[in-house]
Amino acid sequence: MKIAILPGDGIGPEIVEQAVNVLNALDEKFELETAVVGGAGYAAHGHPLPDGTLKLAKEADAVLFGAVGDYKYDSLERALRPEQAILGLRKNLGLFANLRPAILYPELAGASTLKPEVVSGLDILIIRELTGDIYFGQPRGVRTSPDGAFKGEREGFDTMRYAETEIRRIAHVAFQTAQKRDKRLTSVDKANVLETFQFWRDIVTDVHQEYPDVALEHMYVDNAAMQLVRAPKKFDVIVTGNMFGDILSDAAAMLTGSIGMLPSASLDANNKGLYEPSHGSAPDIAGKGIANPLATILSAAMMLRFSLNKAEQADRVEAAVKKVLAQGLRTADIFEAGTTKVSTSEMGAAVVKAL
Amino acid sequence: MKIAILPGDGIGPEIVEQAVNVLNALDEKFELETAVVGGAGYAAHGHPLPDGTLKLAKEADAVLFGAVGDYKYDSLERALRPEQAILGLRKNLGLFANLRPAILYPELAGASTLKPEVVSGLDILIIRELTGDIYFGQPRGVRTSPDGAFKGEREGFDTMRYAETEIRRIAHVAFQTAQKRDKRLTSVDKANVLETFQFWRDIVTDVHQEYPDVALEHMYVDNAAMQLVRAPKKFDVIVTGNMFGDILSDAAAMLTGSIGMLPSASLDANNKGLYEPSHGSAPDIAGKGIANPLATILSAAMMLRFSLNKAEQADRVEAAVKKVLAQGLRTADIFEAGTTKVSTSEMGAAVVKAL
Ligand SMILES: CC(C)[C@H](C(=O)O)[C@@H](O)C(=O)O
Ligand SMILES: CC(C)[C@H](C(=O)O)[C@@H](O)C(=O)O
Repeated sequence: MKIAILPGDGIGPEIVEQAVNVLNALDEKFELETAVVGGAGYAAHGHPLPDGTLKLAKEADAVLFGAVGDYKYDSLERALRPEQAILGLRKNLGLFANLRPAILYPELAGASTLKPEVVSGLDILIIRELTGDIYFGQPRGVRTSPDGAFKGEREGFDTMRYAETEIRRIAHVAFQTAQKRDKRLTSVDKANVLETFQFWRDIVTDVHQEYPDVALEHMYVDNAAMQLVRAPKKFDVIVTGNMFGDILSDAAAMLTGSIGMLPSASLDANNKGLYEPSHGSAPDIAGKGIANPLATILSAAMMLRFSLNKAEQADRVEAAVKKVLAQGLRTADIFEAGTTKVSTSEMGAAVVKAL
Repeated sequence: MKIAILPGDGIGPEIVEQAVNVLNALDEKFELETAVVGGAGYAAHGHPLPDGTLKLAKEADAVLFGAVGDYKYDSLERALRPEQAILGLRKNLGLFANLRPAILYPELAGASTLKPEVVSGLDILIIRELTGDIYFGQPRGVRTSPDGAFKGEREGFDTMRYAETEIRRIAHVAFQTAQKRDKRLTSVDKANVLETFQFWRDIVTDVHQEYPDVALEHMYVDNAAMQLVRAPKKFDVIVTGNMFGDILSDAAAMLTGSIGMLPSASLDANNKGLYEPSHGSAPDIAGKGIANPLATILSAAMMLRFSLNKAEQADRVEAAVKKVLAQGLRTADIFEAGTTKVSTSEMGAAVVKAL
């Protein structure tokens, strides 16, 4: 099995290195091949997603991704900026299902800005559609306004679009995932305002007929944003579109206060996937050896489970992460009095040892 | 001065009644005229925004609005549902600037789901553009997909659009409002993905030249959702588009844990405005006399300040609300041990008395 390793920018290389060490410690036969992406791709080949990197990602059975972005690329034109690599990989690989767990480990309950009773034991999963919606809808651009009250002046515009197939396939992923959990699915939309999301609601309701064992609830996105703050534990699985999912999954991640712990998976129709930590490239702390590698290590565990069919190895990695937390080891981002502060590589080594 | 009173549905009538009592206690010459809106509008005239109601709102110097929506109207087709009245009023009256303060009163710090140190003293203001964006952009609908990977099948679609004038005028409101506060403005966009919001960022940056005394920061919407949870007090004024503002303003309101306290103003170019509580119609508690009228009373205070040019009276009303809180009076939604639980009308009467 071939895994494409795309470390990227900022803390990407350091955290991916630790996840690779964990994979290598499993005594499985993985072929790992590394390529540049993001700012590093631009620096080496003039494009954030160089042809060779895309080719490798397509050939591989799974992609382990670090993070992209650095201040030094901020002034590039949009098409060349690091984050375009993520959008390009999602679209070219057809990675339409983004799974983002928001889990609060009991040992880290204090890290949250929310009161312990509101978030302790939090375990929700946000499923975000990742290749449709206003992220990719054509037409888009800046033009002379063709009609309406501001006809004739300049305007920016984008198109939100969801076709029936796109909604059905993410709905199936969501219902099937809910079946393996607490069998409760909240579909988040804005059906009271948007035609796209009235259509979304209709299709999700239709797909629900095939999953009578799952309780389906529809919720407006503004209300969902409130309920995530008010009573996040009431959710089990949330499914939503690309744009709303971008916002809600980050809000949900932050509820835990320990975004350095949260992995993510982006899957295609055949469970091939790209795996990356939910946090960003944190260029301000890059190279200091203080970044938390656990989100990336847990992303590798998701990869073992979803794309490489190694559920047992995934369990082992997740258990090892729990063990190092129980041992009191903490990187700076999750450190608190009474625990032991360790570096990026010490944390990685501790996980390898705990395997 | 003429004020249109639109109580609406659910708890709307009971809370508006108390705000009207407060206005009447001010000994000013206001002409108050009431009309049906929302579900009540549909029930009486077959439309959530009856012609007579719209006419009254247009003629009036300001509109005091309760809330709309009730379970019994849920099965109506979208064009007839209660919330269409809000959208219709915003659009027809040109109410493009929505001001939503998220303030945590010291007495109510315990109501928040966030830790006291994270939210105590919270005082931020979200300015949401209210008549543009994907809320109103044409074309929109359900159609046969004209192109792309799903060409030929059914799709839902909407158009996000912002013309230069629309962005400039809300930016001016935002900078001018920030000048009267802590002189810090965060413009929230998604310029890394959306053409509309790259354009938004460019225009806001341009308008900033006229307000060199205000510190302007640009922030992506996903990051803003995170920062609201992580460190909300770092914000002063936030300005954003209609769709992002819908989500972020509700999240921000919920940070306080006391959404029954939060007013809002929706202003046109001449400071004519519609004033309404940030919370909804809560049909489940309608008629029980337990709803919190303070958000509506504080909305009336905003009306005095912004549309009726009675800043002193606005101050009086706001001081009276602070006084009843200091007296320990609480409606059920903000009640905690050691305070005195009062009904909707008792709370209203206490504010009148405290004036
Ligand atoms: C970097 C950006 C394009 C991306 C997105 O908006 O999807 C990021 O925020 C994410 O959530 O992965
Ligand atoms: C009722 C709905 C159309 C409305 C909106 O989305 O603007 C509401 O959520 C609000 O924020 O006032």
